[in-house]
Amino acid sequence: MNGADSLCDTLLANDIDVCFANPGTSEMHFVAALDRKPRMRCVLGLFEGVVTGAADGYARMADKPAATLLHLGPGLGNGLANLHNARRARTPMVNVVGDHATYHVQYDAPLTSDAEGVARPMSHWVDRITDAASVARQTGEAIRVARSAPGNVTTLILPADAAWTDLPDNTPAPTPVQPDAPKPVAAEAVRAAADAIRSGQSTTLLLGGTALRGRALAAAGRIAQAFGVRLVSETSNRRIERGITRAPVTRLPYPVDQAVAFLKDVKHLIMVGSRSPVAFFAYPGKPSLLAPESANQLVLAAIDQDLTQALEWLAEELGLKSDAPGLIAKPLTDGPPTSGKLTGAAINRVVASLIPDNAILVDESITQGREFGNFSEVSAPHDLLQLTGGAIGIGLPMAAGAAVACPDRKVITLQADGSGMYTVQALWTQARESLDCLTVVYANRTYATLHGEMKNVGVQEPGVNARRMLDLDQPELDWVSLARGLGVEAVRVDSIEAFTSAVQAGLARKGPFLIEALI
Amino acid sequence: MNGADSLCDTLLANDIDVCFANPGTSEMHFVAALDRKPRMRCVLGLFEGVVTGAADGYARMADKPAATLLHLGPGLGNGLANLHNARRARTPMVNVVGDHATYHVQYDAPLTSDAEGVARPMSHWVDRITDAASVARQTGEAIRVARSAPGNVTTLILPADAAWTDLPDNTPAPTPVQPDAPKPVAAEAVRAAADAIRSGQSTTLLLGGTALRGRALAAAGRIAQAFGVRLVSETSNRRIERGITRAPVTRLPYPVDQAVAFLKDVKHLIMVGSRSPVAFFAYPGKPSLLAPESANQLVLAAIDQDLTQALEWLAEELGLKSDAPGLIAKPLTDGPPTSGKLTGAAINRVVASLIPDNAILVDESITQGREFGNFSEVSAPHDLLQLTGGAIGIGLPMAAGAAVACPDRKVITLQADGSGMYTVQALWTQARESLDCLTVVYANRTYATLHGEMKNVGVQEPGVNARRMLDLDQPELDWVSLARGLGVEAVRVDSIEAFTSAVQAGLARKGPFLIEALI
Repeated sequence: MNGADSLCDTLLANDIDVCFANPGTSEMHFVAALDRKPRMRCVLGLFEGVVTGAADGYARMADKPAATLLHLGPGLGNGLANLHNARRARTPMVNVVGDHATYHVQYDAPLTSDAEGVARPMSHWVDRITDAASVARQTGEAIRVARSAPGNVTTLILPADAAWTDLPDNTPAPTPVQPDAPKPVAAEAVRAAADAIRSGQSTTLLLGGTALRGRALAAAGRIAQAFGVRLVSETSNRRIERGITRAPVTRLPYPVDQAVAFLKDVKHLIMVGSRSPVAFFAYPGKPSLLAPESANQLVLAAIDQDLTQALEWLAEELGLKSDAPGLIAKPLTDGPPTSGKLTGAAINRVVASLIPDNAILVDESITQGREFGNFSEVSAPHDLLQLTGGAIGIGLPMAAGAAVACPDRKVITLQADGSGMYTVQALWTQARESLDCLTVVYANRTYATLHGEMKNVGVQEPGVNARRMLDLDQPELDWVSLARGLGVEAVRVDSIEAFTSAVQAGLARKGPFLIEALI
Repeated sequence: MNGADSLCDTLLANDIDVCFANPGTSEMHFVAALDRKPRMRCVLGLFEGVVTGAADGYARMADKPAATLLHLGPGLGNGLANLHNARRARTPMVNVVGDHATYHVQYDAPLTSDAEGVARPMSHWVDRITDAASVARQTGEAIRVARSAPGNVTTLILPADAAWTDLPDNTPAPTPVQPDAPKPVAAEAVRAAADAIRSGQSTTLLLGGTALRGRALAAAGRIAQAFGVRLVSETSNRRIERGITRAPVTRLPYPVDQAVAFLKDVKHLIMVGSRSPVAFFAYPGKPSLLAPESANQLVLAAIDQDLTQALEWLAEELGLKSDAPGLIAKPLTDGPPTSGKLTGAAINRVVASLIPDNAILVDESITQGREFGNFSEVSAPHDLLQLTGGAIGIGLPMAAGAAVACPDRKVITLQADGSGMYTVQALWTQARESLDCLTVVYANRTYATLHGEMKNVGVQEPGVNARRMLDLDQPELDWVSLARGLGVEAVRVDSIEAFTSAVQAGLARKGPFLIEALI
């Protein structure tokens, strides 16, 4: 038994039994240790952005962290963008980054870099293992922090010699750690929120984190139904339980002007696991803060508090019984379109109408899917996972991770083409693991969001240089060939009829399938 | 004219006229400015690892930096691995990273991160632009540092409001900066090296940086020819001028045992732009330092000194005239194989025999191409670009950048399949820009180097978990489909005859072409 075994055993003792990995030479002793632990499921990503994005999707659905295995500073660097998204989602994650042996660092070999420096901007917690004897303790602390509310990204740097050094036979077996539970809610915060709601003035509950799930969401629904309070989520969320049986929550619009208009009449803005709304980007002459200055902003509970307790207590404080009726979504006045040229809007309508019960919906649709939520509140019950940090390239990996966590559930990914290209290698992982992932690519062959932003900065007709940086044509991406190259079957469609049939076919089968939807 | 215009103008005033880019919303004013400067060539990468790898390849061949345009901390993160390689190569590069407006950072919007923190581990120099009026000065300094010997990776963070703020009409036009020239060589170092060489004892000149090019290499060749000195390069090099008209230089072997054996009889080890050899990785019971302790290690000149001056002065000190004969490679005793099952060894022989005059050879062949250098010293004259930092995923982007720099030269990439998957998106850039890139994929469908390393750690028969992390089969990657999906024509071959024909066909055409060589 060596340090690498100790690390694996500590993970397993804490019920971390999935490791998304892209190892290298400095991790070979860890790989050898994993090879001795068949209980650990190792999932290879052909690029580290796949690894970290999959670990994010896994933890969002499993409600426990996965481990990742990455190769020195540059391998970690490749995973940073999706670590950024996980950090924003407060996803629990334990990253293991192999590094040179302690005594080898001084020689500055070609792959030497400041791994802590690379880790820190996108991790809540970073540590470097000192020696084999300390592996269990330091790994335990990484797990404890990762699992402590509201969830943290932790990065543990593992020198090769700490991995390969043998430990005495009498080394004790690792024991489970005790993470910090969510902090309790303050009575004054509940009373203040109740007073605001009872005032009868325009009140919005802005929900984030676990307030968008289960009993917390149900309590919010009862409050909304009884008091006419508006339920709103942040623009991007780790996981929303959504669909016909759940309280419908409206997403705060992404465009600044729309968000400001959406919030302009709010008198009381009550944050529950969310933060006061801010613009995704700054624009000349537009505000950074989205809520009106006149609004009374209250924090019922912050992200690290017990949001279920907060909302159930608030409902009780407002005199609502636990079986009081909750808010219900209004039925749509019409069904989805059934024929004609395919558009982004049609994709949204068709998919929303076909979501199977208990599906997982991964949304990296960027511009084209912004209206999707208008239709999915009456879809069959499902979980919605969003791009939390704005770092594109999470859709395909997150779907893979969610499918590993929930092998019996269909995973549907709404994927913008430009963003999908960032981590397209994830399709291979979907194929290798036979994951039940249906991907819909909105193939508009442009960075549509940036064309909108160019107009925002006053450029009505982009010139050669701008078009060459914003358009994905010349050559056109061929997603059917790309998917085939990575072992995933795919079809291309450009009509609503063909798209509807393709979605139905994709839902009927098991395993990965991709629809290139030309729009 | 705004800050973004000022930045572009400063780049152009310093002859930086290529910008590899993957912009986002915070860079829209910079994109609009680029749109007003048709002299700037903007090249889109569909992933930031393509952007930074291409900028590396460009600068290695153009001998001047390209600019890159990246989107906040996560976009920079995606480019870090190839920045690491560029940092190791001492490639000059000016990265422009857009960030939130200065006043917006405090609100911690979803895409906020510590961009300086992300940049620092892989940059020689990092700065944040303070305001529009300071753009020209700070950009000038970034360029000055990047172009100062021996070349530096500089990263400039551009807040959106510094880009969009207008400057007065009378703002002076930017002027070219004066980079630091290489430092002069010390007479004592030259004399000491000359004494070592004259001793008649086993002497090795270990060449790095610009010592592997032009007059410097020619001087080394004269010394080697006259005194029986061995010419050796570091294992990984920025650029080697190679082929039948150049002094043949032997690459220091990558495997530790081979490197130690290679150096064991060296009495005098003279470093010229190189460092004392160290193992790429540490292994239990193997040394980190590769040269024998008994060796007399001398530094003729370090990487930041004038290596041409150093070697020409040394030759002169040794009494060699500038027209003294240089070392010449021994002819091969046989031609390449012409038929049979394709192997990695056969690929190396065939390609080496067919390299056209003045080609650029990009080597990310990892295990399969290690013997290539045994044959290419008698190939037609060419430039060889190597993976300097060990962070895989540079081959396809570096080829794209080299082809942008040298549109009239054929670029041949020797590409390992596992590494190629890291930045496969680069094929699209090759197609979009009609770059004359021939890619040979060694399709062994495994991380072969790691299988070797597993044996090194004592695992003779990898189990399920190890195989699942080291093999790229199940499903097999289909490079022909992948290339087609990205707009590049491709063929698959598995015999020497078919491979030879495919290489000949690829060389005869203009534009990107890929050969999936099943081995």
